[in-house]
Amino acid sequence: MPTDWDRVLHPRSVALVGASGREGHPMARPLAWLRDRGFAGVVAPVNPKYPSLGGLPCHPSLADVPGPVDLVLALVPAARAVDTVEEAGAVGAAAVVVFASGFAEVGEEGAALQAELAAVARRTGVRVLGPNCQGLYVARSRLFATFTAAGERPLEGSSGIAYVGQSGAIGGAVLDVAASRGLDLTAWVSTGNQADVDVTEIGRVLVADPDVRVLAVYTEALPSPEDYVRLAAEARDAGTALVVLRSGRTDAGRRAALSHTGAMLADGTAFELVSRAYGVVTVDDVEELLAAATLLRTQAPPRGRNVAAVTSSGGAGILAADRCADLGLAVPELGEETREKLALRVPAFGAVGNPVDVTAQLFNDGGGAFGEVCALVRADPAVDAVLILLTMLVGDTATALAADLADTVVEGPPGGPPLAVVWMAGEDATVEARAVLRVAGIPVFSSVAVATRVLASVTPRPAPPAVVVEPAVAPPGDGWDLLDAFGIPVPRSAAVVDPDEASGAVTAVGGTAVLKAVAAGLEHKTEAGGVRLGVTADTATGQAADLLAGVADTVLVQEQVAPGVELLVAVDGGRDGWPPVLTVGHGGTGTEIHRDVAHALAPVSPTTARELLASLRCWPLLAGHRGAAPADVDAAVDVIVRVGRAAVVPGLRELEVNPVVVGTSGAVAVDVLLDREDAATPSPEEER
Amino acid sequence: MPTDWDRVLHPRSVALVGASGREGHPMARPLAWLRDRGFAGVVAPVNPKYPSLGGLPCHPSLADVPGPVDLVLALVPAARAVDTVEEAGAVGAAAVVVFASGFAEVGEEGAALQAELAAVARRTGVRVLGPNCQGLYVARSRLFATFTAAGERPLEGSSGIAYVGQSGAIGGAVLDVAASRGLDLTAWVSTGNQADVDVTEIGRVLVADPDVRVLAVYTEALPSPEDYVRLAAEARDAGTALVVLRSGRTDAGRRAALSHTGAMLADGTAFELVSRAYGVVTVDDVEELLAAATLLRTQAPPRGRNVAAVTSSGGAGILAADRCADLGLAVPELGEETREKLALRVPAFGAVGNPVDVTAQLFNDGGGAFGEVCALVRADPAVDAVLILLTMLVGDTATALAADLADTVVEGPPGGPPLAVVWMAGEDATVEARAVLRVAGIPVFSSVAVATRVLASVTPRPAPPAVVVEPAVAPPGDGWDLLDAFGIPVPRSAAVVDPDEASGAVTAVGGTAVLKAVAAGLEHKTEAGGVRLGVTADTATGQAADLLAGVADTVLVQEQVAPGVELLVAVDGGRDGWPPVLTVGHGGTGTEIHRDVAHALAPVSPTTARELLASLRCWPLLAGHRGAAPADVDAAVDVIVRVGRAAVVPGLRELEVNPVVVGTSGAVAVDVLLDREDAATPSPEEER
Repeated sequence: MPTDWDRVLHPRSVALVGASGREGHPMARPLAWLRDRGFAGVVAPVNPKYPSLGGLPCHPSLADVPGPVDLVLALVPAARAVDTVEEAGAVGAAAVVVFASGFAEVGEEGAALQAELAAVARRTGVRVLGPNCQGLYVARSRLFATFTAAGERPLEGSSGIAYVGQSGAIGGAVLDVAASRGLDLTAWVSTGNQADVDVTEIGRVLVADPDVRVLAVYTEALPSPEDYVRLAAEARDAGTALVVLRSGRTDAGRRAALSHTGAMLADGTAFELVSRAYGVVTVDDVEELLAAATLLRTQAPPRGRNVAAVTSSGGAGILAADRCADLGLAVPELGEETREKLALRVPAFGAVGNPVDVTAQLFNDGGGAFGEVCALVRADPAVDAVLILLTMLVGDTATALAADLADTVVEGPPGGPPLAVVWMAGEDATVEARAVLRVAGIPVFSSVAVATRVLASVTPRPAPPAVVVEPAVAPPGDGWDLLDAFGIPVPRSAAVVDPDEASGAVTAVGGTAVLKAVAAGLEHKTEAGGVRLGVTADTATGQAADLLAGVADTVLVQEQVAPGVELLVAVDGGRDGWPPVLTVGHGGTGTEIHRDVAHALAPVSPTTARELLASLRCWPLLAGHRGAAPADVDAAVDVIVRVGRAAVVPGLRELEVNPVVVGTSGAVAVDVLLDREDAATPSPEEER
Repeated sequence: MPTDWDRVLHPRSVALVGASGREGHPMARPLAWLRDRGFAGVVAPVNPKYPSLGGLPCHPSLADVPGPVDLVLALVPAARAVDTVEEAGAVGAAAVVVFASGFAEVGEEGAALQAELAAVARRTGVRVLGPNCQGLYVARSRLFATFTAAGERPLEGSSGIAYVGQSGAIGGAVLDVAASRGLDLTAWVSTGNQADVDVTEIGRVLVADPDVRVLAVYTEALPSPEDYVRLAAEARDAGTALVVLRSGRTDAGRRAALSHTGAMLADGTAFELVSRAYGVVTVDDVEELLAAATLLRTQAPPRGRNVAAVTSSGGAGILAADRCADLGLAVPELGEETREKLALRVPAFGAVGNPVDVTAQLFNDGGGAFGEVCALVRADPAVDAVLILLTMLVGDTATALAADLADTVVEGPPGGPPLAVVWMAGEDATVEARAVLRVAGIPVFSSVAVATRVLASVTPRPAPPAVVVEPAVAPPGDGWDLLDAFGIPVPRSAAVVDPDEASGAVTAVGGTAVLKAVAAGLEHKTEAGGVRLGVTADTATGQAADLLAGVADTVLVQEQVAPGVELLVAVDGGRDGWPPVLTVGHGGTGTEIHRDVAHALAPVSPTTARELLASLRCWPLLAGHRGAAPADVDAAVDVIVRVGRAAVVPGLRELEVNPVVVGTSGAVAVDVLLDREDAATPSPEEER
């Protein structure tokens, strides 16, 4: 039976198992907050020790609570959590929040307890949030099912921003900082160790909620990449912006995560490619998470990477231009028409290019003109986002200006370029102005660096369209067979196990051949002395004998391919539940030296294949470097597309073709490595 | 006569030429502020229109001001500035501050006026600050010789942080934000268009001032790199920390700068190398400038790149570890002893590794233990900096904790690892705590990303020791002659102009040769078909004839060098006043594809040469890639050191050796390009 999430987020009743009267203790907060802050449902403390608690009747057990119990808060030690879920199941509760720590994060014994918790959740159908979590808060139902200190804030509004994340502390920071900036969250959920429910499941509920315009996610582990893909797809379809802060990206971060709650994110590349494909905004920092959410709450994301900077300080404009360039954002010239209109408003010693330097004089003379300037710049078709850099504007003037800018967003064309503000003046003298902007959905920064990073993160990165291909029939055999099955050109070749067959084989493949040792477990043939170049019919027997006496079980006699640009083209079959990823790079024996690769979700279209090639450092070699004839890029593209299709071969772990030699006419796969789960017999269906 | 900067920073008298009574106008500020805020010297308004101004006697002209005039503030339009400097010279003033805009930043006419201003400054010996500047403020003498709105702050303290920068607006932001954080600047100077005085000259005065512990510099243009080197050296020698925010780093930034005040910075590489050599901290943002200055005001910079993170949130620790890894900072394990001591203080479900996760419980149970934990971590010899990440701590608890941390710095060993704090909670509830930390010299951030960037920027980057060599005698002739003069191995070779000489020449160089076309202006020989490989005595005549009939004036017959790793080794003679820079990279025809280079100030020691090689992506090729024999790194190092010495050849613009072929034994310079100022006749002295 699917979970009725309304019973969890908007419960008719909340039972607090293990509630106690410890004044001032964090664990006393949920009871007090549920009782006092507008929650409309029944609040039922459960503790055999007390007849009443905080003025409410207290029940000896969950079974004694009258009426239906929707949500249970387990304010009990770790050892009592499993029983509480069992009891919650018996009374038909929808979910239990387990706050206690002492599970997987403390070692083997705790992990066993957590497994038990997950098992009882599965068996009873009661959903478990946590353990080691800080619970949830929902604005609409005034559900304070949490002890986070950030709950001390009034939290009377509902900004349209929701948060879900493993870490309650990070979550508390988001809730608190957002509230301090006038943006009370609409919903807030901490998932802790995720024994049962994870961020993607709650996330999918929240992005479907019409109250939620932006979902901010913090995650250390994504137990199911498939669910992350579902979340991303559903957010896109619902028109809800999704901003994800993923930690444990680096080795150092993963080591740190090992001693914390979670498992780890398997593959950063696949995560980034999926996020890009679905328009998910990814950020690196809580501050950026919140700023991106602020912007996307009321404003559309930029359509492209063209930023216009508007400033009263030439210096700030230069800094912004530098940082934009660092982050791949452009600061293009404004249109002629815009510049003409600006010239009527900006003093002669300012600048109407980009950055637009309105000069401080514009403010000395009143300041009303500044809103107009920003609106003009925003209306320029060349502009995708407007970054406003203000220096010494404080007090009432600042607040009036902020109101002007807020109007620009409200009155401008819907979906127009978003505005962001860097305010380089003491926060104390601009508190009100900053609040006016933030409530209007205009993020305010103190740092040009952070502002430009956030603009870059909300700017959609072009993602290739998904390419769907039918699941392929998996041919039996080795990598060469797979290349044949997908129509990828390979050199003429023959396998010999007897030196005496070698000479004939060389003649058969064209007269000059490469001899390659083949043996189980032999991966780096060149280093092992297992490759002989330029072998002719005359020398073939001796060379083959030598290889067979040494590293080889079999000798592959392969047509010697004319030199060309060497590429690596590889595809995995989807690692750890992520979709398959195609890799294209500068290949050959120098692959590790070049470190020149590009990725896309597989399979890919010819257009994407070409874009991947063009993004490589070695692209000039293909395009015709220093007067050389251009290589046959069409043929290379064809090989890439065909390798990409192999992603759907059942059981494929990885297919790596390296090198693909791209000549002036044609591209040939000269070596291949195949790793598949069951390279044995294809199923009968596949044989048809 | 050297400028007496005391007369400028601590004048006995200030004359305000063009002072007027416009209430509330920014230009009325200097007079009011000098009169009312504790400046001890004479304040003399000058304006023929008024007998008195603001209660002070007003003089018809500078010549009418009684007594010596040290400093003149020119509150006059651009057109009157030159005359004012002239008049200031006549009364023996030390300097004139020219506030007016309308000079180089508005085009040719303004540039001419600015040149005139510079000329009169030189002629009269009166120093000019500006034009298009916002003046200066000096705490000790209460000299408010500025109209910056940030001057509205009380500015009663003196933090030891001084600012000098071209931009008055950026400067205003620094002054204002610093003051809002309890750090009143000790001195503040805006240099504007720098017609006469630039940031380095003022900077050198300030770093020598015992009141100044940190100098924060904002610069768009450094007219004289030599002066920047002097400033950096003098700051180092005086023990004054120097933090530089340089804008216009990127093409986009430079374009933006074109329409602003300044010229541009010529060479980012040389700037970075010089900064690194002298321990200058370089930053990218005003927020980072101020945070770095805050830290360096009372704390020592980290000795190395090992960061310890201490946090109440596992999630925050992981984020910090990720960001450190991104920025090249390490998060190493703590020592055994430290971990044992921490284990007594941190709950079992926390972590005593690195990040240290003290868990929120430590604070629930009081919080005093946290200061101890930080002190323990700081005392670990493996730790170079401590990053403290706090989440939900607010109000009085927060302030008490801040005081504890401040004590850790004060009471810890002097010069110990610096502390920085990321406080992930609403600013409103942590205002006091943040102020306590900042005043103690502990920077407080809201963003993990910004905090780690600042830690990375204040961490000294290892800089090779300076290598001094005698200025070299410049040999006459071409690049080959220069290589000979510096003892760099080259292939045996002979130049022929007659095809009939070619065959003998090939025999003379060893039997197999490369023939290269030589002609004025011919740079890319390979593309021009000017290189013939594997030429023997038999084929030499024909090939030479072919070249001489085509692109060549002369044919270079060169010993064919055995294949090896191809490097690029180049040195410039110092561009635009910067010191010479040596470049080492992966060379050959793929140089532009590899984009694999490293730089150092030239000349270099063998140790530095080896480090440069080891930093290249192509290093494994030299070290012995995939089973290949290692290349003769010692020989490559020797070539690099010798090329570096050529930096001191008088008139050298650039010497580029590419490729240097590094074999298993020896390294040979196979091609060379020389660009020098006067490649003609050596002076008689050099011929001796």
